[in-house]
Amino acid sequence: MYFETIRSPGLAHLSYLIGDGGEAFVIDPRRDADVYLEQAGSEGMRITRIFETHRNEDYVIGSRELAERTGATIHHGAAAPFDYGESIREGNTFDAGKIRLRALETPGHTDESLSFALYDGSTGDDEAIGVFTGDALFVGGVGRTDFYPDRPEQVANLLYESLFDKILPLGDQTIVYPAHGAGSVCGAGLADRDFSTIGYERHHNPALQQGRDEFVRERLNEHHYQPPYFRQMETVNRQGPAVLGHLPTPRPLGVEAFVEAASAGMLTIDIREPEAISGALVPGSLAIPLGMLPSFAGWYLPYDRDIGLIVAHPGDIEPAVRSLVRLGYDRLVAWLNEGLHGWEMSGREYQTVPALYAGELKARMEGQVPFTLLDVRGRSEIEQAAMPGATEIYLGELPQRLNEIPPQRPITTFCGSGRRSIIASSILLQHGFAEVEVCLGSLAACKAVGCPIDYRD
Amino acid sequence: MYFETIRSPGLAHLSYLIGDGGEAFVIDPRRDADVYLEQAGSEGMRITRIFETHRNEDYVIGSRELAERTGATIHHGAAAPFDYGESIREGNTFDAGKIRLRALETPGHTDESLSFALYDGSTGDDEAIGVFTGDALFVGGVGRTDFYPDRPEQVANLLYESLFDKILPLGDQTIVYPAHGAGSVCGAGLADRDFSTIGYERHHNPALQQGRDEFVRERLNEHHYQPPYFRQMETVNRQGPAVLGHLPTPRPLGVEAFVEAASAGMLTIDIREPEAISGALVPGSLAIPLGMLPSFAGWYLPYDRDIGLIVAHPGDIEPAVRSLVRLGYDRLVAWLNEGLHGWEMSGREYQTVPALYAGELKARMEGQVPFTLLDVRGRSEIEQAAMPGATEIYLGELPQRLNEIPPQRPITTFCGSGRRSIIASSILLQHGFAEVEVCLGSLAACKAVGCPIDYRD
Amino acid sequence: MYFETIRSPGLAHLSYLIGDGGEAFVIDPRRDADVYLEQAGSEGMRITRIFETHRNEDYVIGSRELAERTGATIHHGAAAPFDYGESIREGNTFDAGKIRLRALETPGHTDESLSFALYDGSTGDDEAIGVFTGDALFVGGVGRTDFYPDRPEQVANLLYESLFDKILPLGDQTIVYPAHGAGSVCGAGLADRDFSTIGYERHHNPALQQGRDEFVRERLNEHHYQPPYFRQMETVNRQGPAVLGHLPTPRPLGVEAFVEAASAGMLTIDIREPEAISGALVPGSLAIPLGMLPSFAGWYLPYDRDIGLIVAHPGDIEPAVRSLVRLGYDRLVAWLNEGLHGWEMSGREYQTVPALYAGELKARMEGQVPFTLLDVRGRSEIEQAAMPGATEIYLGELPQRLNEIPPQRPITTFCGSGRRSIIASSILLQHGFAEVEVCLGSLAACKAVGCPIDYRD
Amino acid sequence: MYFETIRSPGLAHLSYLIGDGGEAFVIDPRRDADVYLEQAGSEGMRITRIFETHRNEDYVIGSRELAERTGATIHHGAAAPFDYGESIREGNTFDAGKIRLRALETPGHTDESLSFALYDGSTGDDEAIGVFTGDALFVGGVGRTDFYPDRPEQVANLLYESLFDKILPLGDQTIVYPAHGAGSVCGAGLADRDFSTIGYERHHNPALQQGRDEFVRERLNEHHYQPPYFRQMETVNRQGPAVLGHLPTPRPLGVEAFVEAASAGMLTIDIREPEAISGALVPGSLAIPLGMLPSFAGWYLPYDRDIGLIVAHPGDIEPAVRSLVRLGYDRLVAWLNEGLHGWEMSGREYQTVPALYAGELKARMEGQVPFTLLDVRGRSEIEQAAMPGATEIYLGELPQRLNEIPPQRPITTFCGSGRRSIIASSILLQHGFAEVEVCLGSLAACKAVGCPIDYRD
Repeated sequence: MYFETIRSPGLAHLSYLIGDGGEAFVIDPRRDADVYLEQAGSEGMRITRIFETHRNEDYVIGSRELAERTGATIHHGAAAPFDYGESIREGNTFDAGKIRLRALETPGHTDESLSFALYDGSTGDDEAIGVFTGDALFVGGVGRTDFYPDRPEQVANLLYESLFDKILPLGDQTIVYPAHGAGSVCGAGLADRDFSTIGYERHHNPALQQGRDEFVRERLNEHHYQPPYFRQMETVNRQGPAVLGHLPTPRPLGVEAFVEAASAGMLTIDIREPEAISGALVPGSLAIPLGMLPSFAGWYLPYDRDIGLIVAHPGDIEPAVRSLVRLGYDRLVAWLNEGLHGWEMSGREYQTVPALYAGELKARMEGQVPFTLLDVRGRSEIEQAAMPGATEIYLGELPQRLNEIPPQRPITTFCGSGRRSIIASSILLQHGFAEVEVCLGSLAACKAVGCPIDYRD
Repeated sequence: MYFETIRSPGLAHLSYLIGDGGEAFVIDPRRDADVYLEQAGSEGMRITRIFETHRNEDYVIGSRELAERTGATIHHGAAAPFDYGESIREGNTFDAGKIRLRALETPGHTDESLSFALYDGSTGDDEAIGVFTGDALFVGGVGRTDFYPDRPEQVANLLYESLFDKILPLGDQTIVYPAHGAGSVCGAGLADRDFSTIGYERHHNPALQQGRDEFVRERLNEHHYQPPYFRQMETVNRQGPAVLGHLPTPRPLGVEAFVEAASAGMLTIDIREPEAISGALVPGSLAIPLGMLPSFAGWYLPYDRDIGLIVAHPGDIEPAVRSLVRLGYDRLVAWLNEGLHGWEMSGREYQTVPALYAGELKARMEGQVPFTLLDVRGRSEIEQAAMPGATEIYLGELPQRLNEIPPQRPITTFCGSGRRSIIASSILLQHGFAEVEVCLGSLAACKAVGCPIDYRD
Repeated sequence: MYFETIRSPGLAHLSYLIGDGGEAFVIDPRRDADVYLEQAGSEGMRITRIFETHRNEDYVIGSRELAERTGATIHHGAAAPFDYGESIREGNTFDAGKIRLRALETPGHTDESLSFALYDGSTGDDEAIGVFTGDALFVGGVGRTDFYPDRPEQVANLLYESLFDKILPLGDQTIVYPAHGAGSVCGAGLADRDFSTIGYERHHNPALQQGRDEFVRERLNEHHYQPPYFRQMETVNRQGPAVLGHLPTPRPLGVEAFVEAASAGMLTIDIREPEAISGALVPGSLAIPLGMLPSFAGWYLPYDRDIGLIVAHPGDIEPAVRSLVRLGYDRLVAWLNEGLHGWEMSGREYQTVPALYAGELKARMEGQVPFTLLDVRGRSEIEQAAMPGATEIYLGELPQRLNEIPPQRPITTFCGSGRRSIIASSILLQHGFAEVEVCLGSLAACKAVGCPIDYRD
Repeated sequence: MYFETIRSPGLAHLSYLIGDGGEAFVIDPRRDADVYLEQAGSEGMRITRIFETHRNEDYVIGSRELAERTGATIHHGAAAPFDYGESIREGNTFDAGKIRLRALETPGHTDESLSFALYDGSTGDDEAIGVFTGDALFVGGVGRTDFYPDRPEQVANLLYESLFDKILPLGDQTIVYPAHGAGSVCGAGLADRDFSTIGYERHHNPALQQGRDEFVRERLNEHHYQPPYFRQMETVNRQGPAVLGHLPTPRPLGVEAFVEAASAGMLTIDIREPEAISGALVPGSLAIPLGMLPSFAGWYLPYDRDIGLIVAHPGDIEPAVRSLVRLGYDRLVAWLNEGLHGWEMSGREYQTVPALYAGELKARMEGQVPFTLLDVRGRSEIEQAAMPGATEIYLGELPQRLNEIPPQRPITTFCGSGRRSIIASSILLQHGFAEVEVCLGSLAACKAVGCPIDYRD
């Protein structure tokens, strides 16, 4: 049996290619689907079926892209209307060589959510060897249940039943293959490890230690952010995403041509490292370091604008394109071909975001001189450790809540380690704020140097 | 100045990516054009212009493919009707940074053939540093002039004038960048080296040592084969080839599915090494070892049939696809996923082509037992060294001339080293001939062991 | 937690790189150890400890190679004398970040065999999430126990206790990470899948369904071959293998130079595909197709001779070198730079091994004309399905048992699918046998076409 | 004929792999010599000879490294004492297949300098097709002649004779293959192109337009910097550099371990981009952006200290290691495994180098507030365009001339585009200077915005 986990960093997305007897299945493919073709091809396997555990709201489904190049059949749950593919029901089975997948309807995260139990016919098909749980069960957590705001209690109960009546009964020996790993926005408290078993989760997954009432209550009390692009993903994934054929190829542009394109409406996204952004930044650009694109691009970027990139190395373009295409941003038209260095040589103005290390921040917090400490972390993080006197605005919501920023200057942005802060700083500069700083190191460093921290728990 | 030669083996095709100041030009791109995008991108150069030295008859022009993904302008000669791109004329110049290209009309090989003199403005633009000669001047040879059968003398004279009046006057210091290297079907006698200068060619290129009359006479006496696909290339290149977007992805098929597809009309091409073909061969398949595809696929394959591949390793599929796509074969639908090994295990019949080493051939030639020695080399090769008693049929023409094969058996196929022989053997088997052998080693080995050879010169 | 399985095909060897908090452990590294360095490096992890589950007899241990370049400490079991590294005992624990490994003494396969339970401190360290079982427990099988011929019963009992008293008690939730997958010579009946759990194995692993007496009896009845190189591996691994620094680089040699080296004592190994070997073979060479090297090179090759390779493509050299270096063959001095094609062109003699498809074999078996069918499969395979009238000599033992071959000619070699047969054919040719054929397809094909087969069970 | 130019960026070093008939030569190999082995191997060529055009002073000769793994013979000029290899003399020839190299003694740059004329026997061996000129003739320039301070006139005359009496007489058709391209420290005024011909150079190379007297006078007037490591290179290359076997593998260290190693004497080199260095910098570290390592590491780094790297991405380590190993720095022991981000999170102090764009610099230059503009460009650059009021200290000499820095603060470092400035800024911070800024953009930007510039010419 061939089994391969394909990880898409940033999204913390996990997809799976499994095969036997020259035939292969893909579970939850991503949109830049070349990886499945290459791996299956090198193993001499033909991809015949694609399974979607659910509609997905955090990325563009890759099944149509993959089906276009393989002729494979797309399968998804029957409880939601899709404009493509074939619906399947509880108990449907699908074989490739000695492999068998059996569908389990496991609603809760979404109505049409499916799980797929994996059997190896060559060693015994009475017990599952694994289960693809989609966003129902994660390692260390469970799926979020806030996508049906009009019936939150009902879907939390559905998830409870899916977990306790469908998935756990597969047995302790069953390996868990979820659709997301640590860092995903699709669940809370995920472990920093992407493999586990039903047995281990049954004992250690906090959500599985709860009775039904406690489980439902906790789900209702969870707070999850919903980036605006989720809505687009939901629509696109239901209707069937556009088939790309190949990745967009942003064109290298010199400084003049880049500026011209920006004047004509192209958005400028700077994906360099936080320190480099701190050092020099093109005025008007939105800075989202490469690794943060999957998590934050969807909060700010519209779908009807061209996008131009500023990168440290040409080699960063492809991963950026992959990250953005997974979120449905296909209008990636340009990159600044000599980077900041070219910009600097052109004589054009650039901005800087002075960095403040934790020791300085501590001194400032303990001193008398007024300044604004802007903490852009999420609600659950701040609940655990808040910064006294800080203005708290979640990073994703910053553009809408700029009016909440107090008048004291400078503004020092703050988050868990400094990466989100630099995004915040660039947003402030975009909107004309002056004296914008960044605390590289942020909370992690503050803990190390003993800043005043309000541990609210 | 950025300068890179991109070689397409087999076709012996040379294309060029040059650039300066963030802008790049491509001369004679191939159809699988990703290489230009990748290289230009990694240098931060935008491809703005594509130059075709001539319409080309031996491969599908890649300019439309590349233009589609770059927005570049396509340029070609004015003396032939193209359905796309922009015509240019003698003396037109094109600048990228300090680079200047100047067009020279150099007809002869084709009417619209252009050459491009290359100047480096940073060191002096009075003398060319190089010249892209297309199929007018090669290292060690000149372009063939047999594409206008109704006016052969005229075009040979045109080529003479292009060479002596346009290209040579650029000066001895000029480096020659031709469109083909050794092994190309677009010229005769090419040197086994793809760099030279006007000065060196002026003294050593045999064709440039001739006066006009001798030059024209020799051109008229040259014999070149014209594979049937040349006509297709000419039409396609004039009208504008279909844009692929990405390479076709043949699907891996098991033995049963592969046989079924073949029954439904798919042609089977076996691209393994000659020895492996000799060892075991699927009945009905056409064997063309991977490296021979560019030279011989165009002789046999129609454009209206699906094609399925038999390969030794999955890694051979991509180069095969590239080779075939360059010849315009896009219907590459399948490959046999377990190769010959899977076929053998299925219990299905396979054929063999017993190999004969030169020592045995010599004994047989000197003995009394009748057999058929089938020499499939080209006319010019046989003129230099013929095999006594051999039946001579050029490989490309073999399917049309099977009736010339004498009745003696076995039939031992023969060529320069054994590679073309194995193609011939597979064609004979396809057409029901029995007792088909192959002389691996062929003429090279025969010379080494002292076979009787008729040196006709 | 970083977790990566590194597979070495052929040996069916599995090693593991795990890490957390910038620190990494490697379990059972292979000798070409660059892969661990590269992966750990790209994750920013420093390899600090290397664990050997046991001395290993089927490959050269890679721990010294890896320690040399990382400074890591090597750990192995205390019950055998090693000339390097540090011994550990039951219950010793080793932490990297939140990862904890706990050693279990699990003798049986060898005296000093260890297993390592894996705990994730971030989710709960009361239950193991996985266990590295070395050669004690495989997916679908258990380790062989025939390495102490003077006390077979004792070691079988030891293995029973290791499994039932040490490993199974870790709990059904524990994922099993063995040192070998399907195809290994270190155990019998391994599943074609390299992941499982204690729970699944407890129910489906045949050996774990047995009581102690049955378990011991079955171990004693198992038959395993012991290639001669096992002895060398045992010695080398105990003393500490030579550190290579980098892979040997065989030099490309032309035909003349290659022949000269062979005359001076270099062994010639042909690693091409079976069909290519069948088509043409250098006299005197030993043919072992690339994928078979890990399993069969150790049966035939001495350690005190230079080795020269014949390959189809230069790209095959590196995997061949890796395979041979893992077995301790470091004197890889040359390869034939133009392959068989160059040999053929030189006019030198080559041999052929005519291939027989199953339909022909069937006819021959049912006919009256005598011939020798030489079945080189292993004892357990033949026990399941024997060929009537065949001479049965296990492939590994063929050079020592040539005198058992009957006088009838031709000799048709036979195995499971044809790959081992071609090795056998080359050995016969090396020893002067004439009329040597190969049945490509062998048993698999015979079943398909309905050859007479004696199903002994 | 196989011909490949291997470029080593930074050093602007060009080496060549040429071959025919299965045999290959390498001219001026670099120390990380794997590239030659890989390319020759994939072409089936055995490297039999290695030619050094001269002893080289700007990098460690790679011939011993390559000879160790190939068995090739090393050749160099007879006029200097080498402790290894074989000397050759004017007129010695060396053949590989149809290729012939003929040695020309071309002293001037160094006494033992050789050039090698390249002939292609298959097209005519009466005229050279190319010439490997080492550091005698470059494209657009000639070698420096300041390595024998006691007889400058004599060596300038020698170079003149080598050029005019040995190299130019090879004829206009000869392609020039120098040992360095634009950006090398081994010559002045090199063209931004690495191909040319004798004919083109004869007309356009400024040095070749001069009579003997003018030529010699100009050589004597040229000013070249001599980094301290040149002396080490000279000694090492004469005696024979240590053979590495494989590249050093710096170990990833966490912040604590890295700090500890630094305390124990390890030097910290930060190779990130200038903007990132500007944003945040580890106190005490020397910042040399990756691309500047070949040019500047040799000015500052001693050979008897361990070196630890700070990088933006693990992928930058290998090119940094290659760059440093080429300069003889083999003690590359560590890298900071989480980069600046990890450092920041540790709470440790970091420094910043505020960046000033040209518009601000202009305002400051035109204003009254005192500050120090520190121009670290070379003498010849400043001669063309000086900054009024600037303190001029060449970057390489900065550590020795810190006492020349005036007391005005801030100190704004300045160069051609900002890359050397950031090195200067880090050196100032290392030595305790406060208020250190950097002008990213520097002269290029100043020209664009109209800063006051003193064009001295």
